[in-house]
Amino acid sequence: MESEIRQQPELYDHILTTGKPEIERVAAAIAETNPRFVLFIARGTSDHAALYAKYLVETRLGLPAGLASPSATTVYDAHPRMEGVLCIAISQSGESPDVVMSTTRAGEQGAVTLAITNDPESDLARAAAHRLPLMAGHETAVAATKTYTAELLTSLLLVDALAGRQPAGYPELPGQARAALMLDQEVADIAARYRFVHHLLVTSRGYNSATASETALKLMEAARVPAHAFSGADLMHGPMAMVDRGFPVIAISPKGPGGEAMKPALERLTDQGADLLLVGDANGAIITGPVIPLPPSAEYVSPLLAIIPLQLLALELARQRGFDPDQPVGLTKVTKTV
Amino acid sequence: MESEIRQQPELYDHILTTGKPEIERVAAAIAETNPRFVLFIARGTSDHAALYAKYLVETRLGLPAGLASPSATTVYDAHPRMEGVLCIAISQSGESPDVVMSTTRAGEQGAVTLAITNDPESDLARAAAHRLPLMAGHETAVAATKTYTAELLTSLLLVDALAGRQPAGYPELPGQARAALMLDQEVADIAARYRFVHHLLVTSRGYNSATASETALKLMEAARVPAHAFSGADLMHGPMAMVDRGFPVIAISPKGPGGEAMKPALERLTDQGADLLLVGDANGAIITGPVIPLPPSAEYVSPLLAIIPLQLLALELARQRGFDPDQPVGLTKVTKTV
Repeated sequence: MESEIRQQPELYDHILTTGKPEIERVAAAIAETNPRFVLFIARGTSDHAALYAKYLVETRLGLPAGLASPSATTVYDAHPRMEGVLCIAISQSGESPDVVMSTTRAGEQGAVTLAITNDPESDLARAAAHRLPLMAGHETAVAATKTYTAELLTSLLLVDALAGRQPAGYPELPGQARAALMLDQEVADIAARYRFVHHLLVTSRGYNSATASETALKLMEAARVPAHAFSGADLMHGPMAMVDRGFPVIAISPKGPGGEAMKPALERLTDQGADLLLVGDANGAIITGPVIPLPPSAEYVSPLLAIIPLQLLALELARQRGFDPDQPVGLTKVTKTV
Repeated sequence: MESEIRQQPELYDHILTTGKPEIERVAAAIAETNPRFVLFIARGTSDHAALYAKYLVETRLGLPAGLASPSATTVYDAHPRMEGVLCIAISQSGESPDVVMSTTRAGEQGAVTLAITNDPESDLARAAAHRLPLMAGHETAVAATKTYTAELLTSLLLVDALAGRQPAGYPELPGQARAALMLDQEVADIAARYRFVHHLLVTSRGYNSATASETALKLMEAARVPAHAFSGADLMHGPMAMVDRGFPVIAISPKGPGGEAMKPALERLTDQGADLLLVGDANGAIITGPVIPLPPSAEYVSPLLAIIPLQLLALELARQRGFDPDQPVGLTKVTKTV
């Protein structure tokens, strides 16, 4: 897990140089079909990448988007009409039967289908009309790290290309990721405070809602801490009631509109006496507790950086709690659900 | 909270008799616009009703559907193209600015908009082209109960009408709900075992994913227990690692395909030594632990019944833990997020 976390800057470089032309070629073919709606199919970590991609589609591409419920197909045999829908399936292994079946069904029902997967020979890649490889190399650790960020960057380049945007290609991204990796000592110090924690709450908003969900999942998988992700808005609609004095909360708040929108939640958490760790910037909120800063970036790129110290936190906390992060209990690398 | 929980059978009867004609009238007007895609806008409890409605739309209406991210509009000023989209906003109060703004924006961008709210004079009702009242009467308790089930039933009747289905109108539903309320003594006995719990995991699949999410929220709001909802499939993709011997889990498993799809999760939870409470039917899985049976119903109707003993559980657990369920800490009845 550690070596895969540390490969991420190099992987960004690889995707930006070697992967980008293929992403642009596939985007051009998809754009010709003029999709009206984008539906994502994914599970687990890849579902969090899909959540990031959904914000990109809504905000930067200007199309409505949703996350599909694979169970609708596999459990209830639903046959929704899919003309005009671009259906993007995201999966590291490309092998979970429910994701494969939902993608096949979407294509049969008229959707244009795209598989984003690390295994171009997988069932999923074969089930879709278009495919993009993650180019992440073999991932051995059960807890996905580099395939998650490869999914984020592939989604970003895909949406840019679909939107006809020609950004400079994020040449600063590998260096920013290296800077994020250099937070490892600060992260190790902070991990110590969570050694005996019963549960953790992770919150963010907008693009980094994905970071919050993925952080919670890494904490559950590697460090075996029940960790709960909420958007900073949904938190106010109920879960805030369980936050008592000393309740441990990790808030991810980049510079930018998403971070600014976290202000009410940060202030309320502080008022209720939560034990707060801030990753990013308080954006003017008055808070107490430690801060892990993030390398500067545009906010819509920040999920590709913010997750790195949080992957390190899950790794370090696993070690401090006496668990082998490379051998999570009861999990296998390829999860097959139907 | 208790009296509102106990009003639900009567409320079902009221909606089925008095509310249905208006639902059918609105459905007929919407059907003329021939929507191609359905997008839900909601927060908190209403977001769980939207999750149920999303399964109904995918499975019984045969259209793709998604849950909108209000932040895309309010934080990032997204302007997605919405022609052909039916946008359904669900909110008890109709007052949360992010839900209102997202609905207004959707209408401006070409969507057909419908507001389902308990307050026909609310900002949300005024923002939408069509509106349906929940007819739930005034809800006083901060933790929503009867407005949640009113949202479920209104969604069910709406989707039936949009799909041109003319079911017998669920005349057995009020009686089934009364039978569910009569589980109160069994529920009180079970609540005692959770008195000192640190956290709870709630899981289900398909239509009752909504029940799992709503149960977790009631437990957080009223009983202040960190409670975590996962689909039985997503549970296998990572969170299962944190389930050690004695880890408390509530599984909602009706008779039917969704319950059958829970079998692998139920068996894995049992293997890992989880402390399991089953609500519904094991559908042949070999499990240990208490069972709260559900009144028989079609599976797609079961969320309207399964939530009732679980609302009672949150209420009873709040009391046993010494909290006033009618005064959740740090919450107000109308939550306004932007």
